[in-house]
Amino acid sequence: MHWTQDIRAADTRIRPYIQRTPILETTGFGLDYPISLKLEHMQHTGSFKARGAFNTLLGGSVPDAGLVAASGGNHGAAVAYAAKRLGVRARVYVPEMAGPAKIALIRACGADLEVVPGAYANALEQAQAYEQQTGAMQVHAYDAAATVIGQGTCFAEWDAQGLEADTLLIAVGGGGLIAGAMAWYGGSKKIVAVEPETSSALNAALAVGRPVDVEVSGVAANALGARRIGTLCYELAQGQSDTVTSLTVSDEAISAAQNKLWKERRLLVEPAGATALAALTSGAYQPAPDERVAVLLCGGNIATDPLEALNVPS
Amino acid sequence: MHWTQDIRAADTRIRPYIQRTPILETTGFGLDYPISLKLEHMQHTGSFKARGAFNTLLGGSVPDAGLVAASGGNHGAAVAYAAKRLGVRARVYVPEMAGPAKIALIRACGADLEVVPGAYANALEQAQAYEQQTGAMQVHAYDAAATVIGQGTCFAEWDAQGLEADTLLIAVGGGGLIAGAMAWYGGSKKIVAVEPETSSALNAALAVGRPVDVEVSGVAANALGARRIGTLCYELAQGQSDTVTSLTVSDEAISAAQNKLWKERRLLVEPAGATALAALTSGAYQPAPDERVAVLLCGGNIATDPLEALNVPS
Repeated sequence: MHWTQDIRAADTRIRPYIQRTPILETTGFGLDYPISLKLEHMQHTGSFKARGAFNTLLGGSVPDAGLVAASGGNHGAAVAYAAKRLGVRARVYVPEMAGPAKIALIRACGADLEVVPGAYANALEQAQAYEQQTGAMQVHAYDAAATVIGQGTCFAEWDAQGLEADTLLIAVGGGGLIAGAMAWYGGSKKIVAVEPETSSALNAALAVGRPVDVEVSGVAANALGARRIGTLCYELAQGQSDTVTSLTVSDEAISAAQNKLWKERRLLVEPAGATALAALTSGAYQPAPDERVAVLLCGGNIATDPLEALNVPS
Repeated sequence: MHWTQDIRAADTRIRPYIQRTPILETTGFGLDYPISLKLEHMQHTGSFKARGAFNTLLGGSVPDAGLVAASGGNHGAAVAYAAKRLGVRARVYVPEMAGPAKIALIRACGADLEVVPGAYANALEQAQAYEQQTGAMQVHAYDAAATVIGQGTCFAEWDAQGLEADTLLIAVGGGGLIAGAMAWYGGSKKIVAVEPETSSALNAALAVGRPVDVEVSGVAANALGARRIGTLCYELAQGQSDTVTSLTVSDEAISAAQNKLWKERRLLVEPAGATALAALTSGAYQPAPDERVAVLLCGGNIATDPLEALNVPS
């Protein structure tokens, strides 16, 4: 694959439809070194997923049956949003564990939504059956080249914004986002893959030597709870084992990082959005004295609408 | 006064202590034109007030009695934070209407805090009495040159970040922030002063021809509820009447803008922080077809800690 060339082309293709997300160069969070944060949770529909969704839609011809996707919530919202913007139909399968805020978000984006008992893998089975029956275009949440290439534009954009870090910390679910980073950098930067202890499909795959099923649970499960790491992500991580590090953080560390982001910078993110930072704030990853680190905040779709919880009139 | 020279000097002086806040170039919120947002609610203690507080402290010699300030909440937190960073004592008077989250924030910053019945003006009386008795340095929330000059650094910073707007929209309480903008630009940009209908001290002063007392209430009262506009702000606005526009927005328009910021960009701000944007989203200010507009998000200290409201473990 010509990853960097494909990501550059995707960047041009999706640019009119996506939000260039800001960078925050900051200190704090109990760390004694500066960090660069990319505020990708400010992307359309509240996560990086809009990049892969637009790249898939714009890169192929959409059949009359429209699109189909399975999602823990964020990918489904992104597919629904992209479909609406481009005037095509979308059917989205989400597991119950997506939670009411993400389900409401997908519905608000205008998708034909089906809530499936169980976890992401159950929703994916139904999405695949629908694809077979109708010929709809499957927009995979992480394990398709168009998705990975779309997520890779996040890093092309960050570089264009002057990223100077040696090391990027990125949260991993099914691995679409970090695959985009590995595809873009091709070993030229250190990449730290951060997973919750409660859903660590990449960590398990690297330990065993092949993608294997893991149990998923915990505070970030609806965003990071893929049962098995994507093949594209696994192969990129295997090929870049000199520069890619895999580690896990506890749910408590994730909640603590979420608190720090709000209390110190008024950044309200979902647990998945705080997971990469948690590797620093918990000490799970300790940079060398001169190592410059950057952290991607990947999602902001917190379980309940905070303005409802705070009784702000809508 | 040599405003721009003083603001440049302040910018150098306070730079090591303040957060350079990001810019978000975006579209949406129901508007058919792009806008530039400065995310100043990500400043230390959640509002621009840290700029004026640090400039005051660093610009003078602090007596043994330390600092004293009166505040609806945000200024008090900023003074407490700056005092702690620089190792001096601070006594802060806040009115009950500051609300529990702001009072907790000031306490967490380590100030000697007194909660006063009534509104901001009542807290100010007590702060002035304390200054008289002890010789403490008064850090005025808006009507002192060092405060205005400190807030002006926000615009020096925005310009250095490449601001290209013709017109800035800024929320007004006592007028310290907008005075900083008027001082920095000196009539070279259009400035729109946005106040809640429920606390519109600048609007009333410009109508009457002098600062007058107004009633204060409404959703943004603890941040924008100054009973009388600051003299410095009033005189600058009078002198720049060709380029400064004053208008008001309803509480409903403020809450609607607050909702749009969360739903479209995952920006959670307090009512004051959404007030300037409300002038655009409500149509109270309608830019000309080629007019480039920019909006300052000035504060993020929403009434209750959202992570508590959402049951995220701390």
